[in-house]
Amino acid sequence: MSDHRTKALQHARENTDQFLNHLIDFVKIPSVSTDSAHGDSVQKAAGWVAERLTAIGVENVQVLATDGFPVVFGEKRTNRTGAPTLLIYGHYDVQPAEPLELWESDPFNPLVRDDNLYGRGASDMKGQVMASLCAVESVLQQGDLPLNIKFLIEGEEEIGSPHLQNLLKTKKELFCSDVALNADTGMISPKTPSITYGLRGLAYFELRVYGPSHDLHSGLFGGIVHNPAQALCELVAAMHDDKGRVTLPGFYDAVVALDAEERNELARLPITEETLLQQTGATLLWGDPDFTPVERIGARPPLEINGIFSGFAEAGSKTIIPAWAMAKISMRLVPHQNPKAVQQQLQKFLEKNAPKTIRWELIPMAGSEPSLANRDHPAIQALIAALESAFATRPVFKREGGSVPVVGDLKSILGIESVMSGFGLPSDNIHGPNEKLHLPTWRKGIETLINFLYNYGEQSV
Amino acid sequence: MSDHRTKALQHARENTDQFLNHLIDFVKIPSVSTDSAHGDSVQKAAGWVAERLTAIGVENVQVLATDGFPVVFGEKRTNRTGAPTLLIYGHYDVQPAEPLELWESDPFNPLVRDDNLYGRGASDMKGQVMASLCAVESVLQQGDLPLNIKFLIEGEEEIGSPHLQNLLKTKKELFCSDVALNADTGMISPKTPSITYGLRGLAYFELRVYGPSHDLHSGLFGGIVHNPAQALCELVAAMHDDKGRVTLPGFYDAVVALDAEERNELARLPITEETLLQQTGATLLWGDPDFTPVERIGARPPLEINGIFSGFAEAGSKTIIPAWAMAKISMRLVPHQNPKAVQQQLQKFLEKNAPKTIRWELIPMAGSEPSLANRDHPAIQALIAALESAFATRPVFKREGGSVPVVGDLKSILGIESVMSGFGLPSDNIHGPNEKLHLPTWRKGIETLINFLYNYGEQSV
Repeated sequence: MSDHRTKALQHARENTDQFLNHLIDFVKIPSVSTDSAHGDSVQKAAGWVAERLTAIGVENVQVLATDGFPVVFGEKRTNRTGAPTLLIYGHYDVQPAEPLELWESDPFNPLVRDDNLYGRGASDMKGQVMASLCAVESVLQQGDLPLNIKFLIEGEEEIGSPHLQNLLKTKKELFCSDVALNADTGMISPKTPSITYGLRGLAYFELRVYGPSHDLHSGLFGGIVHNPAQALCELVAAMHDDKGRVTLPGFYDAVVALDAEERNELARLPITEETLLQQTGATLLWGDPDFTPVERIGARPPLEINGIFSGFAEAGSKTIIPAWAMAKISMRLVPHQNPKAVQQQLQKFLEKNAPKTIRWELIPMAGSEPSLANRDHPAIQALIAALESAFATRPVFKREGGSVPVVGDLKSILGIESVMSGFGLPSDNIHGPNEKLHLPTWRKGIETLINFLYNYGEQSV
Repeated sequence: MSDHRTKALQHARENTDQFLNHLIDFVKIPSVSTDSAHGDSVQKAAGWVAERLTAIGVENVQVLATDGFPVVFGEKRTNRTGAPTLLIYGHYDVQPAEPLELWESDPFNPLVRDDNLYGRGASDMKGQVMASLCAVESVLQQGDLPLNIKFLIEGEEEIGSPHLQNLLKTKKELFCSDVALNADTGMISPKTPSITYGLRGLAYFELRVYGPSHDLHSGLFGGIVHNPAQALCELVAAMHDDKGRVTLPGFYDAVVALDAEERNELARLPITEETLLQQTGATLLWGDPDFTPVERIGARPPLEINGIFSGFAEAGSKTIIPAWAMAKISMRLVPHQNPKAVQQQLQKFLEKNAPKTIRWELIPMAGSEPSLANRDHPAIQALIAALESAFATRPVFKREGGSVPVVGDLKSILGIESVMSGFGLPSDNIHGPNEKLHLPTWRKGIETLINFLYNYGEQSV
């Protein structure tokens, strides 16, 4: 099928403008799953994906209802006997765009400037979903597929995929495949293609601290009640020690120590302190000095404050003691931590450290287990070759700091491994303002995926 | 003039409904001075006060422009020679009503339920301003006044009266009086009339902590940069020690120690730990154990977090490391602290404690000096008698935890003392949701003020 492969690559190169226009239409839909005000748009995005799948020739397309937002399914079988089945995973929902005032262009009216497409979801992960659709379209234009493919495009990834497990359990046969392709991870730089073999899990909480029954006049009651904003700050401050280590009891007990070989390999990644300072804009790096920044990102579990609120936060001054205070707190987990155990550790920490002068409540918001992939899987070998031909260099293996709950779900429910390689860049500002997609890298990504479909299909027969 | 006095009190009793209707009209105007969106309403409230003053017979009424919201002036002279001049102070602006969802009725559509009027500003201090207007109206109905009166009703008290000093300096002769009456303080309980002889000052700041240049994906960068929300919590937590004492260097140096007599007198106030728990709804009291709660409220300087904000504080979850964090921090000051010195102490604290992994900025928002009144002033003696006749009990003297910048300004610019006695109650929820005014106490307040005008006028001739 080498003739087909050449023609498919040719098709992709000749249709870059059309591919980009489809992506722009997709990004225009404000499918923010964390915000109920955007519910209609999230539904709309599901319909849009279903339509696009049908348009490129995918069959049996279904918008599957869940207790939350729907999952889009589609499949296309090859005539070749013995060919493997690839499950292409993606999500059509996006993070909130707030704070809007920091965007230089409308997050939902995507704009091409220089080599980038700016818009919420352009990189995470509508661009990645579109890359897989463009690759499949390019291959289908040449006739038969080299393998069977199925699509699973969900709408709740950004809120921790709360209803996906249940759907997978009730539709095992529909989704059953040999391996999953997950492009919800990124590259290290435009010149360094990467395969992610480790993912961190996630445990996300809202901690609420309650003080007086109502906001008090700080002049009338200041100095006699424990200010809940202050009490929350005291608790949050106590969650790390002077060296930046998390102080929850037993937090590091289950963490697998890095062996010398892995430390060596991580040290070879082209990520310096300077690159990280540039990407973050921080004045100095911070964290546990016993580990390098690269080790801390991929192999250590951080605890981060994602948001905090109490009292009067508008412009101007208001002299109150707030009635309550709230922090969003999340931990990225590494093997063999798990979200339930971490919740108990946080609970114990609070029981021990919270003073009797306030009341508190811990609300679990999302959780997923960490995972480590088998690097010898034939699909990974097929992917290595595909990345090499598109980027003219051998890919590096990395552990990703992020969390992709579906990887754990696919493994535990359907028993399938996920091959992870996406085409976003660290400078894409995903989850932040001015998210963008680097278009030259994205086009190489489409070529990579075309080659991957042929490599994996041909290799396995 | 004892016949006049009796008739004035009679007039007040016969016009309670009409007085209440005027107050309701006044509370309906959402004159929130901290919020620029309410600018027109604040201006409208100034016009409303000027109209009411004219309606009750006050002369030379003027709405005096400042660089902020205007000050309403009016005066009425007596024919009696040698009579003193009383300056009646008030403010027509109110605190923001947010959080609106905690109000049981519309804050700007006041509602009478049982013995209370519910609405923003009903107690602080539109009710108090109306009480003085009702008292003056009742006296003027009987003919000549027993003394000269002037009105100074400002519109920026809730934002620290930033333009009042300048106006007092340029209009010294207009405002020049013998003593000021300031009802912007409250009573201890409906049965305990009170005269405030000490006020705390105020120093209000916004502390901003800056981390990465933009919100970061917490999975990609968690554990390698200092989270600014966490850094802010660490700074805030360090501002108090284990005993609840403020740790800013030199913070207590200028604070005058309480002498035994003053401690005894404060101990006699009918304020127990139980009353304070009831009023605040806190589970336990908190604070420096070397001082009683009553001492801490009036005679010690607290540092309070009035608000805090960072990152994602909406419903749901968002996995970011925020780019910045902010806290509103204010201190109530006692003699002989001053806001400039406290700003330097906070600045020094931050220079010493803020880590190099973040940047910070301290923005001063408002400041006023603390004050202590002379308890032998003839106007205070007149007020004691007036309170006794309305409440049938001798008033107690107290130090107020709140701050009234104008008291310091009147003293330093015009050289006049302020006599402080208002008719709000600790349960009025001023500055909080469901602010209310206890109407039976308010009516006794009007009687008190009528008696005060006669007592002070007659006594001084």
